[in-house]
Amino acid sequence: MKAKHGGNIYEAAFKYGIDVDEIIDFSANINPLGLPDKLRNAIVSNIDIITKYPEPSYKELIDAIAKYNSVDENYIFPGNGAIEIIFLMIEAISPKKTLLLAPTFIEYERALKKVQSDINYYELKEENEFKVDRQVLLEKIDKEIDLIILCNPNNPTGQIISKEILKEVLEKCKAQNIFLIVDEAFIDFTDKEINMSLTRFVEEFSNLIIIKAFTKFFAIPGLRLGYGITSNKKLKDRIEEICQPWTINGFASMAGRILLEDKEYIDKSKIFFQKERKYLFESLKNIKQLQVFKPEANYIFFKVLKEKVDLKTELIRKKILIRQCDNYVNLDSTYYRIAIKDRKSNEKLIKTLKEVLDEG
Amino acid sequence: MKAKHGGNIYEAAFKYGIDVDEIIDFSANINPLGLPDKLRNAIVSNIDIITKYPEPSYKELIDAIAKYNSVDENYIFPGNGAIEIIFLMIEAISPKKTLLLAPTFIEYERALKKVQSDINYYELKEENEFKVDRQVLLEKIDKEIDLIILCNPNNPTGQIISKEILKEVLEKCKAQNIFLIVDEAFIDFTDKEINMSLTRFVEEFSNLIIIKAFTKFFAIPGLRLGYGITSNKKLKDRIEEICQPWTINGFASMAGRILLEDKEYIDKSKIFFQKERKYLFESLKNIKQLQVFKPEANYIFFKVLKEKVDLKTELIRKKILIRQCDNYVNLDSTYYRIAIKDRKSNEKLIKTLKEVLDEG
Repeated sequence: MKAKHGGNIYEAAFKYGIDVDEIIDFSANINPLGLPDKLRNAIVSNIDIITKYPEPSYKELIDAIAKYNSVDENYIFPGNGAIEIIFLMIEAISPKKTLLLAPTFIEYERALKKVQSDINYYELKEENEFKVDRQVLLEKIDKEIDLIILCNPNNPTGQIISKEILKEVLEKCKAQNIFLIVDEAFIDFTDKEINMSLTRFVEEFSNLIIIKAFTKFFAIPGLRLGYGITSNKKLKDRIEEICQPWTINGFASMAGRILLEDKEYIDKSKIFFQKERKYLFESLKNIKQLQVFKPEANYIFFKVLKEKVDLKTELIRKKILIRQCDNYVNLDSTYYRIAIKDRKSNEKLIKTLKEVLDEG
Repeated sequence: MKAKHGGNIYEAAFKYGIDVDEIIDFSANINPLGLPDKLRNAIVSNIDIITKYPEPSYKELIDAIAKYNSVDENYIFPGNGAIEIIFLMIEAISPKKTLLLAPTFIEYERALKKVQSDINYYELKEENEFKVDRQVLLEKIDKEIDLIILCNPNNPTGQIISKEILKEVLEKCKAQNIFLIVDEAFIDFTDKEINMSLTRFVEEFSNLIIIKAFTKFFAIPGLRLGYGITSNKKLKDRIEEICQPWTINGFASMAGRILLEDKEYIDKSKIFFQKERKYLFESLKNIKQLQVFKPEANYIFFKVLKEKVDLKTELIRKKILIRQCDNYVNLDSTYYRIAIKDRKSNEKLIKTLKEVLDEG
């Protein structure tokens, strides 16, 4: 079965008889600043590029990604969304046993099931605000494991694993021949993105794979573009062997350079999220019946303390869609994740939450 | 390694120092009528759909495909180009031994290697114009085989397998629990497409999988859209288990209905190819040093009889790119495939071929 994700406004619209365009979608973590104008103009001006096959080596795209991340272009592998990279990396590694955080992004588990990997979970503790504990994580790394996947910041909890912990994990993994995949799909939204990313360790650690996405930061989940970074030549050769040709469409292929060079949109987004994350976090914390976990990315994770309230159902009746986290391992239906949206939408959410929870 | 395909004008441009836009590309089998205006307008008017995730069940797309093919919508599985369907179907079936035509489309073999399937080849004979012989094909179907893949019309030879032969193959396969994949990526270009397609047998034969593409007929190889048709629920469930979410981008998802309802473009294309195929086939036949095989789709397959002539190299110097078929099983560098293009380009090709072969 396909997994349930955020962003399925279509299902919600159908189920509750609402027009899709009337729903305010807090369930998908997409930059509310919308489609960058430079990309919009490029698509309109170059619409006929789709009458040609994409350039099969995606050289221009790879060069732009390498430059942006300050790594060798031979380390880059672009994909049809970060999802394709997740599936390809896991298939190429074919681990026997994998360590996952719980909760974390759901597709790792689906990709691992395909290669019949056993899964060990590091169940994050609510009392520790779902943060990764250095000691616990290091203890869970043993020789039985072939692969560790860490989502940083983690989805749906929004917590960051510090660079210091990650460095220790990386070294222990290297010593024991364990691959480490760090999914940085949301790292561009954090305050100190450049400082947080593990790209600087790619050269030194051939057991490291970083996954990044254009999807969320540049508001193009429908265009599909992500990439992996690794200096592991054997792994990259294996991926070349098993991958399908032309998975990245012509528009996405063209978009890479345009977006990564769009400093105006990038800077504007970073400033926006710094401010709006603070506003929405503080506002949510003022609602007594919510336990809100400190956000680092463009979404906020919280628990409803009031019993027997199905917030998702209550809110969709008011045309607001939020992500209920009951299909994550180690979570239940009292946990929710919301995207940080524009101020007007955020205000509407806060107002509606207060109404529903009788805190108006 | 990634396989070599037609359509790599980028590599040719780089190698010979020519601007990509100066090359007349006969190597990719794309409809020269170009991007349908209705799709062009729809993309421009709906550009912001890419700021949302595609609807994950692709219901509207599936309904349009089902209607066009007159089959149940539960039988349709859409993909990121026909390639994704080829890879998914082969992975879901995981055959131990597969029967392929030789030559045929190269990606079947790559997908089969991924699942470690052995391959038996039916080597098509030049003396039989690379046609499939009913008796030979039926004899090659034995209990050791799990899967047969037939490309109809076959790529690169352009030959069609008759519906009568296919029906016999289908029945023999059914009796022996063998899956039959028929790749109809080019069937829309044939004169009697509706009569040739096996879609009518999907209901009755659960061992049948048909693969179709939007790519070539609607001139959108850069948009990526294809689909599979099968009534085999177990196979479809398995594919749901192993597939990635959102592989089809938002524009492609929207394009399906628009294109299949564009009767004007479809009819215009069919009339165009009937006429232009005849013209180009007759013109090529007039060149004495070419042995030209009767085309049924939108490309023409031929052999150069003159010794020691590398037509690909000779033509690219004149900024014309054709597909040399030396990386197909059972072919060598004397075989070529060319797409049927607009009259002006076709005339240029004929003129240049005559010059190169000293038949000017």
